[in-house]
Amino acid sequence: MKILVINSNLEQKYFDLIKKAAEVYKAEAVFYKSEKEVPETDYDADIIYGFAPSISKVSRKLKWLCVPWAGVDSLMVPGYFANEECLVTNSAGAYGVSIAEHMIAAALVMFRRLDEFFEETRNGKWLFPREQKSLKNCRVTVLGTGDIGTSFAKRLRGFEPASITGVCRSGKNSSGFFDKVYPVTALNEVLPETELLAMCLPGTQETAGILSEERIKLLPRGAYVINVGRGSAIDEDALAENLLSGHLAGAALDVFAKEPLPKESPLWKIKNLLITPHVAGNMTVEYTKDRNVEMFLEDLDNYFKGKPLKYLVDKKLGY
Amino acid sequence: MKILVINSNLEQKYFDLIKKAAEVYKAEAVFYKSEKEVPETDYDADIIYGFAPSISKVSRKLKWLCVPWAGVDSLMVPGYFANEECLVTNSAGAYGVSIAEHMIAAALVMFRRLDEFFEETRNGKWLFPREQKSLKNCRVTVLGTGDIGTSFAKRLRGFEPASITGVCRSGKNSSGFFDKVYPVTALNEVLPETELLAMCLPGTQETAGILSEERIKLLPRGAYVINVGRGSAIDEDALAENLLSGHLAGAALDVFAKEPLPKESPLWKIKNLLITPHVAGNMTVEYTKDRNVEMFLEDLDNYFKGKPLKYLVDKKLGY
Repeated sequence: MKILVINSNLEQKYFDLIKKAAEVYKAEAVFYKSEKEVPETDYDADIIYGFAPSISKVSRKLKWLCVPWAGVDSLMVPGYFANEECLVTNSAGAYGVSIAEHMIAAALVMFRRLDEFFEETRNGKWLFPREQKSLKNCRVTVLGTGDIGTSFAKRLRGFEPASITGVCRSGKNSSGFFDKVYPVTALNEVLPETELLAMCLPGTQETAGILSEERIKLLPRGAYVINVGRGSAIDEDALAENLLSGHLAGAALDVFAKEPLPKESPLWKIKNLLITPHVAGNMTVEYTKDRNVEMFLEDLDNYFKGKPLKYLVDKKLGY
Repeated sequence: MKILVINSNLEQKYFDLIKKAAEVYKAEAVFYKSEKEVPETDYDADIIYGFAPSISKVSRKLKWLCVPWAGVDSLMVPGYFANEECLVTNSAGAYGVSIAEHMIAAALVMFRRLDEFFEETRNGKWLFPREQKSLKNCRVTVLGTGDIGTSFAKRLRGFEPASITGVCRSGKNSSGFFDKVYPVTALNEVLPETELLAMCLPGTQETAGILSEERIKLLPRGAYVINVGRGSAIDEDALAENLLSGHLAGAALDVFAKEPLPKESPLWKIKNLLITPHVAGNMTVEYTKDRNVEMFLEDLDNYFKGKPLKYLVDKKLGY
């Protein structure tokens, strides 16, 4: 039994952990920084923990692919796996901490106009204070109440917002960090009461274009939008228009319909739009790495014991 | 009895509130945006709520000055008051929310290198992720455990830091948001265990130069510093040196020994130093205005009833 680990962010100590776990079950674990480094002699692996589109496309031996991040939409296409029975797990749950920190930071930077102040002071300018907004008493809606949305709501609590409203497919309030959770069918009723809309949805057919032009208009004038889920969830043209017109006070996008954001995109030049290059959940944060490997090892144990995998992706739902 | 309110941030609704409260005690309240607008005929006020150095310097009638912000160090100099018996209250307690939000934002921007990403994307650059740090499992020391430090610790809790250690004059842990609170005499023992040092001290003789070169060196390599209290608390030359050498990973300063920061200051050009122009506690935030006026009215009631003022500044301690 062969396990391929393909990851450029993990240090030796993580490889040691995985090797040790594999040995218990007499499996061999081999490590590479990227798929390009993997020799064809290792294409026969049973398990891959990493990003390996070329191998999964040709290997009929691959039984389980563990993706070290959360969003698996790019894998849910015909032909991605030579072995259609290949199990897929993801690492949703490892990124909530990091992405939630990004979301709080993005909200505060917009509300407090810190990007303006930083740009001014970088250029030697000490300019007058201007209007700021607070998370205290703010009405926040979180679209997507999984690991990321819940981690965000948990951190947001201490800022004493007026309300934290969750919106998700089921409408179930499972975490206790939301004041109320509505099903996505009630989204149109929630938007007019929203000062800050924080979006952290997986990329699925149901979420594509969910923040349409019509729904952006349902947000009150002066609302803010954050997106850390998938760019496909937002009508980017309508967002741009409503940022330029001032209907929206600001937006912070970490994800885009097309990434990297194309050179010719009009989004680059919008002053009240904060752009980050899909870094909210990058894997350098210590906790993210720890949790990521921990989750893989948990399922490795399940795999060898013939138990169901805990972090299995529902291929129909796409997350 | 005449009350002067001098403030450019307060809207009509606040003036109405103050006028109504004054009328109860048959006092007259008059309003100006700045001291320059005040005619000499109003220099005979008994109470001033606002910034009025010229009036307080000449008026022997002034019995109570309520300063609409927290730091009163600039008032604690001989000759500031013609009437040496003049009571001074401040508005510490109104700014904790706003300043704590700034502190969390500053920490996250530094840890997540968002200022770099913002600068890059403003210039059309989509560059690779790089090392980030998390508040989770971070060891944080808060120097100054008053309203600001406590509001910060409260918000920080949700981020699950490894520890929140308070340091203050008394060493008393009064709020419950700190894991432990040490007296300032133990500061040198706390610093080597500190990854993020958050400073929110009043400007007094005791706090001047408290973060000396020696103490900066006591911080571990790679530590971060935030200051939102008074610039006088830090040896700025030593800070600059230790940022440039990389001993400190980063700093975020909202306050400086001299403000506005002089054109010739070497601090402007330090890449791992975030500068904001003393805006952490500006008065535009709705909650700050509400609380500010509320506190003044509370003491106005005390004043008229002959009770001790609740927000009285201890002129010996200077805060």
